[in-house]
Amino acid sequence: MPPSAHRFLILADGQFDPLTSKTANSCIRYFPERIVAVLDRRQAGRSVQQVLGYGGAIPVVADLVDGIGRGAGATAVLIGIAPAGGRLPDEWRGWLREALTRGLEIWSGLHTFIGDDPELGALARERGVRIHDVRRPPADLPVADGRAAEVDALVVLAVGSDCNVGKMTAQLQLRDALVRRGHRTSFVATGQTGIFIEGWGIAVDAVVADFIAGAAEQLVIQGAREHDIVLVEGQGSLVHPGYSGVTLGLLHGSCPDAMILCHQPSREWIGDYHGRSPWVRIPPLAALVDLHERAAAPVRPSRVVGVCLNTFDLSEQAAREAVARAEDETGLPATDPVRFDPAPLVTAIEDAAAALR
Amino acid sequence: MPPSAHRFLILADGQFDPLTSKTANSCIRYFPERIVAVLDRRQAGRSVQQVLGYGGAIPVVADLVDGIGRGAGATAVLIGIAPAGGRLPDEWRGWLREALTRGLEIWSGLHTFIGDDPELGALARERGVRIHDVRRPPADLPVADGRAAEVDALVVLAVGSDCNVGKMTAQLQLRDALVRRGHRTSFVATGQTGIFIEGWGIAVDAVVADFIAGAAEQLVIQGAREHDIVLVEGQGSLVHPGYSGVTLGLLHGSCPDAMILCHQPSREWIGDYHGRSPWVRIPPLAALVDLHERAAAPVRPSRVVGVCLNTFDLSEQAAREAVARAEDETGLPATDPVRFDPAPLVTAIEDAAAALR
Repeated sequence: MPPSAHRFLILADGQFDPLTSKTANSCIRYFPERIVAVLDRRQAGRSVQQVLGYGGAIPVVADLVDGIGRGAGATAVLIGIAPAGGRLPDEWRGWLREALTRGLEIWSGLHTFIGDDPELGALARERGVRIHDVRRPPADLPVADGRAAEVDALVVLAVGSDCNVGKMTAQLQLRDALVRRGHRTSFVATGQTGIFIEGWGIAVDAVVADFIAGAAEQLVIQGAREHDIVLVEGQGSLVHPGYSGVTLGLLHGSCPDAMILCHQPSREWIGDYHGRSPWVRIPPLAALVDLHERAAAPVRPSRVVGVCLNTFDLSEQAAREAVARAEDETGLPATDPVRFDPAPLVTAIEDAAAALR
Repeated sequence: MPPSAHRFLILADGQFDPLTSKTANSCIRYFPERIVAVLDRRQAGRSVQQVLGYGGAIPVVADLVDGIGRGAGATAVLIGIAPAGGRLPDEWRGWLREALTRGLEIWSGLHTFIGDDPELGALARERGVRIHDVRRPPADLPVADGRAAEVDALVVLAVGSDCNVGKMTAQLQLRDALVRRGHRTSFVATGQTGIFIEGWGIAVDAVVADFIAGAAEQLVIQGAREHDIVLVEGQGSLVHPGYSGVTLGLLHGSCPDAMILCHQPSREWIGDYHGRSPWVRIPPLAALVDLHERAAAPVRPSRVVGVCLNTFDLSEQAAREAVARAEDETGLPATDPVRFDPAPLVTAIEDAAAALR
């Protein structure tokens, strides 16, 4: 059963809030109609709307069996946070055992694979229930050899000033808008949340380092089948000290014809290091455009064709000013594709597709 | 027992030649006195010198037991090539079984871990013999958080125009020269051959992509203990379509104070893609200097302080001209540290260390 057919109970115990439970929150944003409940003992009794500010009446519960029975009933459990420390807490183990015993699939994006847990893996096999570790890389990934450059489709990669600035959201919005205009457009998921949404993809941050670009290449080839435009989900940032390797591998492996630069205008510093003392200041947009085009050029020249801003934390007026400033600074079309009309970016992608022919 | 105490039989069956058996050849170049024999049925009866053009009288043999008994006798088997297709051929399995039965350790740099092989792993445990899969990443690698920038030592990273241009060799030569000048200098191995030579390190191409920079950071912190200069082995190239992610992660994670640019002047195209049709043309040296400094800058500014050329395939005159041309093009000191005096680069590193204080 593809994820699009499942109804999920989301596990987010102790961490369900607007900032921490990123995976849970993205799933709620993208397919709220398929979430029956969220399990967090700390927030139990409230609605998702009350916790996040969106998500409507989906209940937050303290008990797994209670949660499974809500709405039309859950058919799967989705792990929506990483447990602190990376190890599976005992309570989680109990919940997952209970879910498997009841025949519910488990969908997990953790770096530690649930299917490899001796107890839970054996139980799943015994019950004939599937555990989907979406971060588990496919076997036999190739080293990239340039085949992504040979697809007929236009390939557009989202790049960003930081992690968590809306790269996936931007591509999903653009995909919907391009499909509405009649273009056969695929979204290629490169991270766990994207895979939860689309039901296929590779978490490129979880592959062995030698095969990042090879994974990206394979994804583009698959996404280009029967599609004219391929929108590749971005990961990390070329200026992110921890994840830049993933970002460059994805850039060189996917051989994009065009790039969309994503940014959150209220963010001045790379977020993951802001808590200690701020470390990496985000360069100006024009410098980021230049950095990405220079990084791509030796392998395969590519241009940034537009800027997507994430203005959720700005007033409407400040957001419109940020869009105008981004256009000024880069000379490129810009928008917030969630808040405003995505048309300027959709047109930029159509123009890039036309130029390809 | 550290690798420096072992005497090795090198397994290179069917692939022992100057170009294919890169790992075997590096080990022979760096510690010939500890190699008792090379196993290659195709080349058996010749000497290593006859096959490679260096390595002296080390014999090439067709039989494992014969090889183990040569010289002072092998204490370990070193896997010096990757078997075609990645799977362990049946003959290899037999040889490794025989070696373990005789109490010989196995040192392997393969992506497929010998210790995970049910039969060989069990045999090793039963006999109390160690299998060293040097590409196996340490457990619990961190995401990089900038601690490499805080060490007191000068950190120098080798970067390159391509894979296999002599980045490791250059750093080893410079390490020896710096030690001779009285500097407490460590060489930090980031690939399998370097680990065979030094006995410690992490193969950063084998870690999960999210942790490339974290692995580099850990290595620098370890290398800086009781050393004033840390020379980090480079991997891949920022312009290599397959491995650039590893290279950028290593650059951002190791937070180098200075970089050494390595290049083979006779090479015009990235080597791994030359066989099909040439794909990526290597940019001019000055452009490579610029590319690396721009890639480093947003995270931590760093400068290229010198150029190391690998001129093994040039006449002496052509080599000297290449060195002069590199100095001209970049305005930096250049040398071939194997063929000529490494002094210009050693002095450049000393100057960088002095500037740090």
